This record gives sequence, C-alpha cells and structure tokens, in this order.
Amino acid sequence: MPNAAAHAGAILTIDLDAVAANWRLLRDRLGRAECAAVLKADAYGLGLAPVARRLAREGCRSFFVAQAGEALSLRALLPEADIYVLNGLAHGAEADYAAHGLRPVLNTLDEIARWRVACRAAGAALPAVLNIDTGMARLGLAPDEVDALANEPAGLEGIRVVYTMSHMACAYARANPMNESQRRLFDAARSRLPPCSASFANSPGIFLGPEYHYDLARPGAALFGLQPQSGEPNPMAQVVRLQGKILQLRRVDRGMTVGYGATHRFAEPRLLATVAVGYGDGYFRTLGNRGSGFIGDIRVPVVGRISMDLVTFDVTDAPGRETVPGATIDIVGPGHDVDALAAEAGTIGYEVLTALGSRYHRVYLGAGR
Amino acid sequence: MPNAAAHAGAILTIDLDAVAANWRLLRDRLGRAECAAVLKADAYGLGLAPVARRLAREGCRSFFVAQAGEALSLRALLPEADIYVLNGLAHGAEADYAAHGLRPVLNTLDEIARWRVACRAAGAALPAVLNIDTGMARLGLAPDEVDALANEPAGLEGIRVVYTMSHMACAYARANPMNESQRRLFDAARSRLPPCSASFANSPGIFLGPEYHYDLARPGAALFGLQPQSGEPNPMAQVVRLQGKILQLRRVDRGMTVGYGATHRFAEPRLLATVAVGYGDGYFRTLGNRGSGFIGDIRVPVVGRISMDLVTFDVTDAPGRETVPGATIDIVGPGHDVDALAAEAGTIGYEVLTALGSRYHRVYLGAGR
Repeated sequence: MPNAAAHAGAILTIDLDAVAANWRLLRDRLGRAECAAVLKADAYGLGLAPVARRLAREGCRSFFVAQAGEALSLRALLPEADIYVLNGLAHGAEADYAAHGLRPVLNTLDEIARWRVACRAAGAALPAVLNIDTGMARLGLAPDEVDALANEPAGLEGIRVVYTMSHMACAYARANPMNESQRRLFDAARSRLPPCSASFANSPGIFLGPEYHYDLARPGAALFGLQPQSGEPNPMAQVVRLQGKILQLRRVDRGMTVGYGATHRFAEPRLLATVAVGYGDGYFRTLGNRGSGFIGDIRVPVVGRISMDLVTFDVTDAPGRETVPGATIDIVGPGHDVDALAAEAGTIGYEVLTALGSRYHRVYLGAGR
Repeated sequence: MPNAAAHAGAILTIDLDAVAANWRLLRDRLGRAECAAVLKADAYGLGLAPVARRLAREGCRSFFVAQAGEALSLRALLPEADIYVLNGLAHGAEADYAAHGLRPVLNTLDEIARWRVACRAAGAALPAVLNIDTGMARLGLAPDEVDALANEPAGLEGIRVVYTMSHMACAYARANPMNESQRRLFDAARSRLPPCSASFANSPGIFLGPEYHYDLARPGAALFGLQPQSGEPNPMAQVVRLQGKILQLRRVDRGMTVGYGATHRFAEPRLLATVAVGYGDGYFRTLGNRGSGFIGDIRVPVVGRISMDLVTFDVTDAPGRETVPGATIDIVGPGHDVDALAAEAGTIGYEVLTALGSRYHRVYLGAGR
C-alpha cells in the first residue's frame, strides 16, 4: 500500500541499528559467554522478521522463542540458526521439532521421555536443553525430578543435551538475595547431572557480574532498550519511537468534560488535541488522566479516559505551530521512553512493547543490507 | 500449517453464529432504524474478515471502522457495503477515500472543506457523515463550528451528507443525565443544519429506548457479547472462548514462592499448573494474583505475576484427571465471560477483546462455506 503512512493513525519507528548496538554491548559485556537473543512474542512486539534478520547479520547464532509456532516462523527466516523453544516440547508437535531442527527446552521428565522417542524415530541424538527450576515454580525440573535424573542418568540417553539452564526471578534487583540463592541451587543441580554447558542469565542477569554469565546468556528486553537494572542508569540505546497524529484541536471552557464517563472536568479554558491512538493499539486504559505525550520537550498530559481508537492530550502549553491537525505528538520518544510510559501505566516496559498494536504504520531503520 | 493447534499455547474459539444472533437481536430491537456494525480495531480483536463476511451474509449493509487503513481492508472484503471512517478524512488520503467509495465522518470544518475539494475532483457529490460533538470533546464539530455551518450552509455544497451523527459518552449508565442532555444538544444542532437522517446510538444507547434510535444505530461491543448496560442482565450471546494449555504441573510446599518478584508465598502445599498464555498474548499483568481460570465450574486462581508467555494457576481443588499436561483451562468460557475477566483486570471488556493476542490458534464457528 503506497499511501499506508497516510492511512494509519500513528507512526511506529523501530531502530534496528539500536537493537544491533544493544546486542553488541551485551555481547562485549559477556566476554567469552555467547550472547543469544530472545525473540518471543513477535520479538517483544517489534517484528520477528526484521529483528531476527538484523541480529543474524550482526553475528547472533542462537535464538529463543516461547512457542513452537514462533519457532517455525523463525526457522523459515533463518535456516541455519540454533532455535530454542522455551515453553518446551509441545504435545503432538514432536515430529515437527525434529523435522525443522527446533531445540526444545525440556521442562519435565515427560518431555524428556517424549524427546527420547522423537530422537529414536529420527535415528539421531537431537539437541535439547534441560531446564532446572530454581525458584520460579513455573517451568523446569522440580527438585524430585532432578533427583530422579541424577539417580538414573540413562533417562537422558539418546538425547544431545547442549545446555542445562535455569531462569531468574528477581535479577532486575541487584541486591535481592534470591539471585545468589538461585545460582547456588543451579550449580548444585548441575553437579549431580552429566557435565554440560550452562545458560542462566536473562537481560538483567548479565549485569549482575561474570559469575552469572556461564556459557550462554539469553537477553530479550535489553536488546529493545528496556532498563536492565532497576534504580540504575540505563546503558541501552532506545529502539522505539511512536508518533500519534493529531486529528483535531478543540478549545474547551471551564466546566466542560472530555471522554467516556466524563471523568475529567476543566477548571479553566484549555486547548485539547485528539490523537489517533487508543487502547485498541495497546495504549493502555490505565493511562487515562495519567499518561503523557511530548511535543518537543514540552509535556502534554492525557486528559479523560483512553478510547479504543483515540486519546486526548491537553496541549495548551505547546506552541501553536506544532499543534495542528496532521502534526504528531510523541507517545514514545526522546523525552519519554518505553519504561517511562510503562511507569505511568502501572506496568513494565515488557508489557508496553508486546502490546504495540497492529494498526501503526511501521518504519524500520537500519533494515537494509 | 496443518498442525497449528499443536504449535500454539492456547485455542481461541470465536462463535460467528453468536455474533449473527447478537446483530439480529439489536436489529429487531431497533425496529425501523437500521442496524450497522462497528468493526474497528480488527472487529474488536476478533478478526475483521470472518466477522465482516458473516454480518454481510446476515444482511448488515453499513459498517464503521476507525481508520482509513481499516476501511481499505474492509472494502477489499465487501465491495458493495457502505463503509464509514469514524476518525474522519485522513490527511493525504482524500483521493483514496473517493476512489474506494469510503465515507468519511467529517469532524471539522477543515475536513468538510477538504471533502468538498475531493468531491469536486471526482466530479460527484460523494457521501459523508457530519459528526457533531455533544460532550465527548474528542471528535466532531464544536458549537462554534455548527454555528458557522448554520450561518453558511453553502459550506456543505457539493457533498452528499447521508447522516448527521453524534457519539454518546455515558450510555452504559441508564440513569446518567448526560444521555438526555447529549440527545437534546444533538437535536438542537440538527435543527439548525440542512435536514438529514441521523445516527446517535452505540451499543448501550440502543437499550436506552426508541428516542435514542434515530435512523441508524452503530453497535460494536454488544455484537461481541459485551454487556450493554451496567448493572442489568446481559441479553447478548457469548462469542469468545479462550482455552489455555497446561504445560506443566508442579507441587509446591509451604514457604515456596512462584513467578517473577516472588510475589506469592504459599502457606501450605499446593498444586500449580503453568499455562501457555501471558501478557504477550494480551492476558494483562494486572491479573497477577487476581485472575481466575476455570476447569469445568471449579475456579482456579492465578498465583504470582503474569509472565510474557505463561501464567500459573492453583489447581489444587480441581480433579486430577483434568489437570494433566496438554489439558486446557478456560480463561474465557461458560463460567467466566469477557466482562468478568475485565473486572478482575480492572478494565472493561472492550480492552480485553482488542488485546487478544496473535499467537492464539483461532477457530471460527459458523463461518459457513
């Protein structure tokens, strides 16, 4: 569609050069450990295909996704990459994993048994990862399952275990004692299983120090500019800019209200701008009467509730030449990053990214060869 | 993909027969007024193509979307339908509206002027809607703009105005005086403009009585089963079922925690089920430690935070034969509709629907041929 930018309500710009720079920063910080990339949920909402292609070009070889469907999409893009499925070996999809070279993260004894069957059927020891739960109680082998494997290592025969891994629960908080406790539990479990490379750190874990790096780290959020350690400066480059188009300007008088439920009543005359972004685009309803847009470095607050397709900003304090229909307001931009928007919405940047809507006109910077 | 259901983490079933039944219920309730359908935001997250085709087959002729891009997608599906663009006449897309027979909802004098130019260029009085703001302060002609048009009706020359419309702010609350106040402002404005058919009611407005029906109503939410009047029984058929797959069962002991931030600590041994749905699928983080799943009619509460790709339910009280890996938990289902899920998340059903993720395996019932 040649005129797609004109047909959309907002422009979402995704800077792949920044993603690449973030990957290199993490890779350099890891030293000898390999730097993978976690691209689940459509690469954190930013588009699996352009992000995966750019990171592969940058030298990334190992990719993690959550689901088998995502892994098959990624395989079509990157025929040579190592592709891992965090949610494990999906029931009924075992032959697809084998046929497409997908590496399941084996989370239960049942998954291990089913992968042994798949390996036997394929006539080869196919690669997989062994996930040990050290505190998430979500996915991974429980202590009694580690016991069972330690007592009966033949349970792994016929499988090529390329990594043992675990997942951190509190790594974004440097001082949380759970970090070291999980690491000790991980080491204790590994010592009882056949020797193997190890993977432990997510994005925040990379910043906790080399004892968390092991052989392979699995960053996701930091690649996309999110702050890896709470309460510390953010070393990552910003990846996302979201510019919503002004549809209409409106002067309101004292006593008037705006939006559904008439939740905001004006104490004095104000100038409002209605912008073509709403919760149908992932601009959460929690931002009603709380969120911020920016025109240059001037903050323009959200007034009233968020509608499905619209949000209204109070632009009284912005220069008139920049508040005209067709001009844009930064919803995410230089003065207001994804983490800041998330804080206003009462959530985390991860949820803001994965909620980014499908109606935005997407522009990728740095996609070219 | 033949095995797509096995590759996905959850099954989203969308009952088009229920959508059709809801449209007929609203149509019958409207009597002589026409019943349109609002299909913005990908038909409230349920899929523009299957929903539009089914409603057209049912006899619906008029469709409203928010953006020009959505209207062009709809035009490709329904060559004969009347298609209205609520967000108005997008800058730079005027010729596309004319070429594809899209009807802009004209919200400002500037949009009216630009549509006159487009009509002149096309050599025809092309249809459009005139939107009068009666209290949303969001989109639509302000009182001074209605004055200007009333004093200078030539401003509409060359345009075929098929409806004047307005949008209700508080219609879900029957007793809210804003409803009648908006209706009076609408009538007052209409009386000053050239005679024309009128459109006023959204889904909840249809249930406020015939004086709100005018000539064309624009339901969206009620088509998809959402409750149209707060505090009253819901007459709409349920459209959505969402079944998340159990990946893993885990027994936890007293004192153990679950999930990111270790926010939930168990006071006694419990059985947990990890399900392949997360905020990356639109299952909001606000549901952490608050949401519910259902196994049959047994409620199983969310424990811990929602992860991007996973949620953990406490299934201790459910029968063992239904809590095995590969079985499903109802996230939306007979005992727990979209409105109930929204209430737990602290939002409205509209936001739950439009956030429904792209990783679900979608099954359409009643799609016909």
